[in-house]
Parts: sequence; C-alpha cells; structure tokens
Amino acid sequence: MSETDWKSDLASLLDPRSIALIGASENSAWSRALAENLRELGYSGKLYPINPKRQEVFGLPCYPSVIDIPGPVDAFVIAISRDLILPVVQECARKEIRSGVIISAGFAEASEEGKAIQRRLVAIAVEAKMRVCGPNSFGVANLHRGVSLISSSEVRYLRPGGVSLVFQSGGLLNAALLAAWDRSWGINCAVSCGNEAVLNVADYADYLIRDENTRVLGILTEGFRDPEKFLRAAKRAAELRKPIIVLKLGRSEKGKHAAEAHTGTLVGADAVYSAVCKQHGLTRVADLDEFIEAVELFSKAKTLRGRRVGVIVPSGAECGLVADTAEDAGIELPELSGATVERLSSSKSDYLSIRNPLNAPERYVRRGEVFKHWIQALVDDDNLDVVGLRLPLPRRREDEDVIARFSDLAEIARRTEKLIVLFSRASISLPEYWRKLLAEHQIPFLLEYRRGFRALRALIDYERFLSRAREASDERGGALDREKSAGWLAAAGKLTERQGKEILAAYGIPVTREALARSEEDAAGLAKSLGYPVVLKVESTGIAHKTEAGGVKIDIRDEAALRRGYREMLRDVQAHRPQAVIAGVLVQEMIRHGKEMIVGMSRDAQFGPVIVVGIGGIFVEALRDVAMRVAPLTKGDALDMIGELKGYRLLEGMRGEPASDIDGLAEALCRFSRLAMDAPDEIRAIDVNPLVVFEKGRGVVALDCLMARKDPRED
Amino acid sequence: MSETDWKSDLASLLDPRSIALIGASENSAWSRALAENLRELGYSGKLYPINPKRQEVFGLPCYPSVIDIPGPVDAFVIAISRDLILPVVQECARKEIRSGVIISAGFAEASEEGKAIQRRLVAIAVEAKMRVCGPNSFGVANLHRGVSLISSSEVRYLRPGGVSLVFQSGGLLNAALLAAWDRSWGINCAVSCGNEAVLNVADYADYLIRDENTRVLGILTEGFRDPEKFLRAAKRAAELRKPIIVLKLGRSEKGKHAAEAHTGTLVGADAVYSAVCKQHGLTRVADLDEFIEAVELFSKAKTLRGRRVGVIVPSGAECGLVADTAEDAGIELPELSGATVERLSSSKSDYLSIRNPLNAPERYVRRGEVFKHWIQALVDDDNLDVVGLRLPLPRRREDEDVIARFSDLAEIARRTEKLIVLFSRASISLPEYWRKLLAEHQIPFLLEYRRGFRALRALIDYERFLSRAREASDERGGALDREKSAGWLAAAGKLTERQGKEILAAYGIPVTREALARSEEDAAGLAKSLGYPVVLKVESTGIAHKTEAGGVKIDIRDEAALRRGYREMLRDVQAHRPQAVIAGVLVQEMIRHGKEMIVGMSRDAQFGPVIVVGIGGIFVEALRDVAMRVAPLTKGDALDMIGELKGYRLLEGMRGEPASDIDGLAEALCRFSRLAMDAPDEIRAIDVNPLVVFEKGRGVVALDCLMARKDPRED
Repeated sequence: MSETDWKSDLASLLDPRSIALIGASENSAWSRALAENLRELGYSGKLYPINPKRQEVFGLPCYPSVIDIPGPVDAFVIAISRDLILPVVQECARKEIRSGVIISAGFAEASEEGKAIQRRLVAIAVEAKMRVCGPNSFGVANLHRGVSLISSSEVRYLRPGGVSLVFQSGGLLNAALLAAWDRSWGINCAVSCGNEAVLNVADYADYLIRDENTRVLGILTEGFRDPEKFLRAAKRAAELRKPIIVLKLGRSEKGKHAAEAHTGTLVGADAVYSAVCKQHGLTRVADLDEFIEAVELFSKAKTLRGRRVGVIVPSGAECGLVADTAEDAGIELPELSGATVERLSSSKSDYLSIRNPLNAPERYVRRGEVFKHWIQALVDDDNLDVVGLRLPLPRRREDEDVIARFSDLAEIARRTEKLIVLFSRASISLPEYWRKLLAEHQIPFLLEYRRGFRALRALIDYERFLSRAREASDERGGALDREKSAGWLAAAGKLTERQGKEILAAYGIPVTREALARSEEDAAGLAKSLGYPVVLKVESTGIAHKTEAGGVKIDIRDEAALRRGYREMLRDVQAHRPQAVIAGVLVQEMIRHGKEMIVGMSRDAQFGPVIVVGIGGIFVEALRDVAMRVAPLTKGDALDMIGELKGYRLLEGMRGEPASDIDGLAEALCRFSRLAMDAPDEIRAIDVNPLVVFEKGRGVVALDCLMARKDPRED
Repeated sequence: MSETDWKSDLASLLDPRSIALIGASENSAWSRALAENLRELGYSGKLYPINPKRQEVFGLPCYPSVIDIPGPVDAFVIAISRDLILPVVQECARKEIRSGVIISAGFAEASEEGKAIQRRLVAIAVEAKMRVCGPNSFGVANLHRGVSLISSSEVRYLRPGGVSLVFQSGGLLNAALLAAWDRSWGINCAVSCGNEAVLNVADYADYLIRDENTRVLGILTEGFRDPEKFLRAAKRAAELRKPIIVLKLGRSEKGKHAAEAHTGTLVGADAVYSAVCKQHGLTRVADLDEFIEAVELFSKAKTLRGRRVGVIVPSGAECGLVADTAEDAGIELPELSGATVERLSSSKSDYLSIRNPLNAPERYVRRGEVFKHWIQALVDDDNLDVVGLRLPLPRRREDEDVIARFSDLAEIARRTEKLIVLFSRASISLPEYWRKLLAEHQIPFLLEYRRGFRALRALIDYERFLSRAREASDERGGALDREKSAGWLAAAGKLTERQGKEILAAYGIPVTREALARSEEDAAGLAKSLGYPVVLKVESTGIAHKTEAGGVKIDIRDEAALRRGYREMLRDVQAHRPQAVIAGVLVQEMIRHGKEMIVGMSRDAQFGPVIVVGIGGIFVEALRDVAMRVAPLTKGDALDMIGELKGYRLLEGMRGEPASDIDGLAEALCRFSRLAMDAPDEIRAIDVNPLVVFEKGRGVVALDCLMARKDPRED
C-alpha cells in the first residue's frame, strides 16, 4: 500500500453509515439545515449531534465530544470558527473517524496565518489517514444514500441518478445543483472540494469513476494538483465509457489571478490543458452554460451510431437559424433520403418543401398521427443518426397536444437505437409543466440551438475519441533505441547541433548528412564526398544562435566558395564571440526542397513534456499557428495536431504544388515525443527548426536541432 | 412625391383609429383571440367585425362587407383562405382603407400558384396605395396604442416602451415576445413582415426609426429587399442614436436553402452583410440568445462613458469565470484604483483580496450597508465606466435581503451616470419574483456571463461607431478626378493592365512607371530612361493571365538581357496564343521592396461595389485572410479593414522589419473605393494584384491591374 492509497476509498466520506455533526444546535442555521436535509432525503445511518452545552439536539441525544460517541463513526462535518478547529479535528483523529468535511473558511485561501493552520490540519489528517474534504468546502452529498452534508436546501429537490459533480467552488456547485433541478438530472454524488488540503479533485474523480453509480462526471477546477492520478482516472473513465466534462477556470491572465487568490493552485498553461483534454477524451467546456448542456446531453444520450443530424422545427425561418448554428458547431445536416421524401410527400401540405431541417408548423403538431408519422420517417431515414426537434412551448397553460406529442416522442425514442433530442430556440425560462415532462421522459433537452449543437458536437467528438482509443490502445510505445541514445541524454548539457541530430537519428528521425571538419582541407574533402551544394555551420557549445554570430553559410556551390566561406566564417565568428571555443565547422548537405516545419518540446510543470508543431515562417511568427499535445503521442494525436494547423492547406498542396508527406511528419512527431519522454529533466526544451517535410512518401529531414537547459519561456 | 412615398407613412397600419376585422366570428379562434387582445390592451379606436352571415359579433354590430362600414377605416386584418382573398382585398381598396394585414398563407412562400395570386394582390395594393403587411404574416401590434392584430395571447402581458421589433418570421417574433415578457422590455411596435409582398423590412425600419416611441429597433431577416432604403434608415438611426440589432439568418449554405424556401428572398453573400453592419453601426447577432441580450442591454443602458468594466460576484471561483468570459469577449477588467482599494480595506474581511473582479460572498449581501458601500466604491472608481454584479438568487422563496440589495442598487444606478448591469452566471430559469424586480427597476439583466459580456462589447462597439461617425461625417467624397477617368470608364471593355493603371493613377493611386514599346529598339530606349532593372509584360487584350502565357519577365538587369527577353517573350506568347493580337510590350520599373497586398472590387447584387483587401500569397490563398467593406470607404473603414487581417502583425513590422505604410494603404483603399463607385456596371470586378505597400511614410504602388467584365465568382 503506497503512502496515499488510503485516499482511494472514499466510501466513509460519500457513503457514511454514521455522521458526527460537530457544533449542532437548534440556534445554528447551518446545522439545522444539514439535519433537515438528511431527514428529508431519508438518510438511514446514524446521526450524532456534538455540542458540550446540549443534552439533546434535533430530538437526538447530543454528545459533548466525538470521543463520547458510543460506537464507531464514519464521518464528521464541522463549520465552527477556524481558530477553534485544530483540537476538534485532533479529537476526530483520536476517535479514528475515517473521514470528514470542513466547511469553515479562513485557511490557505485567506492569509498566511490561515495557511499555517491548514498545514497543521493536513498533518493531523495524514497522520490519522483521515479523508478530509475542505476546508472552505460547501460540503458533499450522495443522493443514492440520502446523504447531504451540504446545507443548501437545493439538494432536497434532486433525485438520485448517474451524474457526479466535483467542484472546487461551492458557489458554482450550487449553480450546477440548480441546473440539475431545472433539467431533472439524476445525481449520484456532489462534492465541493474547497481548498483540497487533503483530498483533491483527482482523488474524488478516481473514486467516483470507479463508483458504479456514476455514469457521467462533471468537474469544475482551477487546476489539477495531482495530474498523474487524474489522468489515470480519465483513462479508466474512457475504458468504462464514462464521459468526463471539465470546466477549467483561469484561462485568462485575469482569471489566473482570481484563481490563485482563491485556492493558491498553480495554474498551468491553458493550451496544455486543452491538449490534455483532447488526448484523454475529456470534454472541455468554457462556461457554466456549456457545462450544463454537455452534462444534460451526455447523461441522457444513447451511444451515437453516427454524426448526421436531422431536425424538425415549427417555423420556416427557424430552419435558417438551425442551419446557421449547426454549421457554426461543425454539425452535418444531410439531405433526407429519397425514401423519406416520398414517405412524407403524401402527408405534407404542398406549401412546404421536404428537406432538412424540416419545417413542420404548429398546426401539424396538433395532428398527432401526422406528426408521429413525420418523426418516425426521420428516425427511419438511413441518412440520419440523430433526430432533433423543437416542440412549440406554450407558457401559461399546459398544452394537451404538446404533452401528447411529448409522450409520442418518448415512445418512439424507446423503440429506436438512434439518439433523439429536443431543442429550444432561446434561453427563455421554462414553464413548470415542461420540467415535469422532461423529468418523466428523460429525453435530452438542449437549451438554445447554438449550445445544443455544440454539445452534440462534443458527444460526436467523444465517440470518435473512444473508437480511436480502441484502435490505438497499444500504440504509445517507448524509445526506439533507448540504449543508443542514453549516453547522449545522460551527458545532456550544451549539446551541439550535431550531437542533437545524432540523438534525433537514434530515435529514427532522418537528419541531414554531415560531418565535422577541423580544417579547411578537411572541409573541402567532406564537401566533395557529400556533393555540392553544401552548408557550413560553426560548431561551438558557446554559440546557441549561429546565424547571428556569422556562423552559417548556405548554398556553397564549389570548392573555391567553400574555402572562402570557411575562412570568412572563422574570422567572423571569432570577431563576434572571441571567447567561444570553436570545435570545428559542420559540413552539411544542402536541402533545397520541401516545407519548413518547426517541431519542439517544452516542459509543463504539471503534465511534463509538451510537443509543439508549426509551419515555419510567418505562420508561427505572425499567427502563432502552432498545435500541441502532451508526450507520448499516438499517430492519431500527431495527425490531429497537424490537421489543427491553420496553414494545413499548405501541407495538402495548393496551386498545383504536390502534397507534403503528412504521414511521415506524423511519424516523426511520434518518434520525437518518445525522445522527449526519455530526455532527462535537465533538458528543458528542444527545438528542431526547421524540420523539412518532403513530398508525400518522401519523409522528412531535420536540418537543425537545439537542446537547451533552459526553456525560453522561463526568461 | 415618388412612386413609393406612400409607403413611408405607416400610421394607418401601426396606429389605426379604426380596424375592420374581416372574417370575424365567435366560432373563429383567430378572430376571437384578436378581439380579446384588443379589449385587454384597451384599444380605444373603432372595431368593425365583417361577416356576411352575422348581425353581431363580440357584442359589436357586424357588417357584410367593408363597403358597408359607415365611416372611413384605417386598417383591415384578414385570415380567410387564400383562394377567397383577392375580391375581399379589392373591396378594401374600393373602400379606400389605407392599410391592412394579411395573415393567410399559401402565397409566394408555397407554390407557383401562390406566387401568381400574390402578384395580383400586389397589383391591387400598389394601385390603391394600400400599405399591406404580409401575406403569411403573424400580424402587427402597437403597445402604446393598445393595438394588437396578432392573435397570440403573449401580447397582452407586455407593457408599452421603446423596443420595436420587425421580424420576417412570425414564429421567431413570438419567441422575442416571450423574451420581452421574461425580461420585461417595454415594447413599442411588433411587426411580422411575412412575405413582404408590399411593405418590406426597410419600410418598417424607416417608419419605426422616425417614430419617437422607438428607442431600439430589433430586426430578424433573411435578406434585405430594399437595401438602399434600409441603409438610409440606418443612417438616420445613427443620427438619432437609436441602435439597430440585426439577426440575419441564412449565413450557412444550408441556411440559404432554408431561407429561400421560406420567402424566396435572394440572400446575399454573408460576408457583405457583416461588412455593411460594421459600416453602418448595426449590431449584428448570430442567434436568438444574442439578440435577446443585445436588446436587453441596448434598451436599458445609459450612454457609455468608456469601456472599462468592474464586476462584483459572490464567489471566488466565479471571479475566474468572469475573467475568462470577459477576455473572450474582448472586455477590459482594469485593476481597481488605489483609492478604492483603501476605501474597501476598512470594511472587507482580511480573508478576501480586493481586486477586479471583486469577491463579495453572500454573507456580505446580507449586510446591507457594507454591500452598498462596496457598490458605491466601484461606481466612484475613476478606473471604471461600467459596474456589473451578480446577486445570489434564491429560487424558491422571496429573499428579503436580496430584494433590499436590488433596491439599493437601483437607487445607486439612478444617482450615477455610469452604467450598472446585473449578471446571472448561467441560463437557469428565473423565479417569478426576480422578474418583478427587473420590471420595477429596469436595470439591464444579462443572462450568463459570456453572452452578457458579448452584449457589453457590442454596446462599446456601437459607442465607438457613433463617435467615429461624428468625426468622419464629411469624409465619404466622390471621385478625385472623375472627368479624367470618365473616358476610360465609358470605354470599359477589356482594359489592358496599362489602361487600368492609368485609371488608378487618375484616382490618385500611385502606379509603376512604365511605357509601351512597339519594337525591341523602343523597349531598349524606354528601359534606359526608366533605369534598370526593369520588367517586361506583353500587352494584349486577348491575354488576361500574362504569366501563364509566357508574357512576363522580371528583373531584367541590362540591355542584353532586355533584348533577349523581348525576343523570347514575343516568341513564347505567339506560341501559346497564336490568335492574340499583341499591342506591344510594356516596359516597367522593377519594384524590389515592400509587401505585396491584393486589393479588389467585386459587385454584390444588393449592396453594389464591395472592396476587398488581403496580404498577398499564402495569407489570401491558404487562410482566405481578407477583409471587406462596401464602397465608398471612409479612412476609418479602410483602417478597420487592414486591422482585421489576421496577418496584420506583418504590416506592423516583425523581427526587426520596418512597419509598412498602413496609413498610405488606407488612403489608397479609399481612393480605390471611389473609383469602384464611379466604375460603370459593365466592370464586374477589379483586381490590383499586387499593390505594394512600402515602409511607413513611403506610400504604395500598384504593380498590376485587371478590370474584368465578369466577376470570377460568377463562374
């Protein structure tokens, strides 16, 4: 059992048989609300109020301290003043209470003093292997077990189900619980992590993904404290087909400050988080609305069989709105099949054309059989995998026709393997009877077309990830030739270009033919055997940027030019850098064709080596057009990266130019990522600039390589 | 009075003193609803039910035909079957009813037969100068006058105010009316245009902008039938400071089909619409949610004094959400001033840091004086122009503290010139008491941070447009030298490069020094006087693409090369195009510095000449990185276009390169736009490719110019 394995079983926290409510009092609104929530939810375990000044609280016998409780206790919950908390937690440890929630605030999020108290709290908890949630937590709840250590009354209105929520922020968790009620999600567990002093987001995610009651996990976080554990949980989630939706705050510079002030978490570079999410099949959302739509769809949707969507709406102009927002989200709305057009022609007025989106005015909704016939026709259409529709939504009365159509729809949905979703056209408040229909039938209901289509797109991407993950499960290998490269990597210091390229070559990445000349004669001999034209480059560990020092000469076409160039170079370099020790001059074949790419590695504090690719020149420099993923890469990751580049068309071949060897480039990126995994920590960054990619089938060649002890971003 | 000036006064339609309700019957749900709406809204004019089979309807005397009504009638409204409609409308014309609404469907939107009937309907209306709304309309309403010729009961719940709505689609108008109730907008007029057979969006916009009751105009359209009139209305709206929000559907290819099927409108190129909106200060939104937030903010906001926003939220993590979504919308959240920090330090717990966004937990909301003090501090902060806040929103009870803070806020808002807005953190249904508070206090309430900040950004952009419009009001001039160019333009046909450049030069756009050589001797002489190096280009109206035909030779450095090049060129061109008549060879100075731009004009069917600019090479070809505006351009328009380019950094100067002459380029674009305005219709497109822009202060030069009779997009 490792140091922290005790954190992997959170049953005592999330499914406690007995709870000590410390500071219980009829005068305390907080403890009263907690006790009421437990009673309302039908909690069947034992509840022990703790208060030295009371004999009885909430009709239950009250104990002066947890020590006095007659039997074992699974969990405590506490909201007393920060300055009184340590001795109480110490008592919980002595009582061997296995877990607890600290609602109290004023710890690391607040002040230096608070930080010190939190450190002592952590010491007590770790020593006792006590699974502590918080401090500065909003509490935890388990709807299947009638547990609510959350004081908000929202919890009472929720029903048990498959959605688990892990939120760093209690305030925003409350918003998600409101949404859960609005959309009638079934909730498994809800956790407000607070300061994550002992348990962190990864611990909860790890436990909840293994919990059979969890079908979908929704996370709000400002950063991951234990990325390794979190990614293990993500991997298991993918195996178990349990989607994880992540709302990561603190993308902006401003947000970073706000987030740091709140929990002191080190916020990693945002682009790296996006890369990690793509690689691990995590659905990353940008705000609460997107979070809510994604949870709504992922928690209620069937397995998608494809990505083609058909939509029925009750107004002609709305077809335009649907088509516009679908296109923005990258959703395909294919034409209906000929069979469907024929089938619908008989029942549809000649005033309306039969296409996708399909205009079915409200008067048709009033004619049950006709409307059912239309929905069924779209469900049966071989061109479609998903059928979406909007029903008119009267606000001030329960519309019998609409309610009947809703039931028809639910009946059709039960009988098909295709996904059926309902849309609304705008974020207008829902009438109460609509909420009841949604709760009863559990058809995914997507609020507003744009967000609805974005959620559908996220589901499509998730399915694609799962199928790709199956294909590529054994692709993430280790080094190709680790032994051969180990020597170089161990000696990592100021590696020269030539040494860097030898390492690239050891990993199977083609490099320029070249050799080091120690004299002019030597250079002339080497150039002759390489064949003209050649390139000369000074070799000196003291010179990182050779061009600026006059240490590069390209396109040398004959021996006279070579000898002249050799002498000039030594003279110029010595003039520029009198201190630099010159090892010699590299004579290199001259590459005249292909496209110049930039490939690099830099280290992320949380996720390790990050691989970056871009198209050389203005794409990288003027447009910051780069794509990144965390090492190691699968071939699929590498192809995704290349495909993400804004200048991708350039590689596909434009204006009659041949296509570049995209597959060869992807292969080189995978090999480079293995090198990055093997590279010792001292190598902070690697630049292969340029890596030239030739025509399709002709592969790539690295022209230069810089292995640096210092990440340029650290400047 | 022009042909259509009768359409400019729509008072009889939107403020009728008397209404004929044709087809009135207690058995008709439609007519019953209409009569009920009029009664509920307190319509004080005369209502005449028309039905040949009844003596009395709705307690009012009923007439067999409009002809039988004893006095004059302002408006009729009709929903009888399409096939019965023409004689009835003919009777309305005979009765000299000035306007009317046709709800009936089945016209141009439906079938060829319907189109024919609509044409006859239009003929009757135009002949009688009868202002007809529809057919296929949902109706019109005027809340100030208690008029509702809309059958939906939503209208009854609305209150009069400054928002006018003009929607092509009745179904989506209903959604906007639901939003109006949800957000308690005051409504002036609501119009469902239907097929726009007689009156179109521009007619309503023109009238409603002049209507003093309109403060904000919201439009949903699939395209403009009378762009000239619409843009005149937009100009007047800017002068009167009445914002126009436009939701234009049919952006996507798919949407285009859907839109065409609905009304038969010719949908113009979407990018041109965006350009027109930018140039005329129209706020273009992409979906109904954005439309609703924009109307909410624009209709309730004060004049902005600046663009710096401060936000107060009740949770720490929410600060991160605010900062992220603000950054995405391009909203600046500056640091609080030192004075504010000091002012707040005294009253704020040391647990919380004082920054923007400001975390003010719910417990402080409970302490009225403290919370008021904080809001006031932000309102008084010189670093801020807008103060936004989110109040906690209990769902199931009316929270006395929150209601009190709402009133405090309204009080503060009344006393300051700064804009105060309320946010919600997600699109969760609103409790009823919240709606009442919003109705009472009319503080802009923005649903969800992302959309809220986007609406704020739109308001900031609108204010910027207004201030720029004032500066640039007299800038849009005519041709610089119209007479000189008139000859060329009149002779427009296959203009040669040289002729095209002469026209550019006439408009003050610098072109390469050059002259036409008719012999080798001639060429040698010209090259000598121009100075080497030179460029040779064949001149022939039969050759549009000279390079492909071997008709261009660049960088000719001496006379020998010139003579050789001249001979080669004639030989090659004759081999490639034996039929082409060669007028001679253009000898041109060789431009070796500067950045190559592409400048062009193409004609939009609705808005006329559109000016396009891009950076030559891969930016245009791989990234489709172009910006466009409709001619004529102001200098501000031209600078905006250049600034929109993704590759803009390249022009600002990168990697130590000098900045380009952006001002000179903008000036050239303005001059080019005047040329485009003057160009006869036969010239469908003009390409200046490349236009070279030199270093700052050095101007531009056109290297080539193609004036085409055919737009390449027409192929």
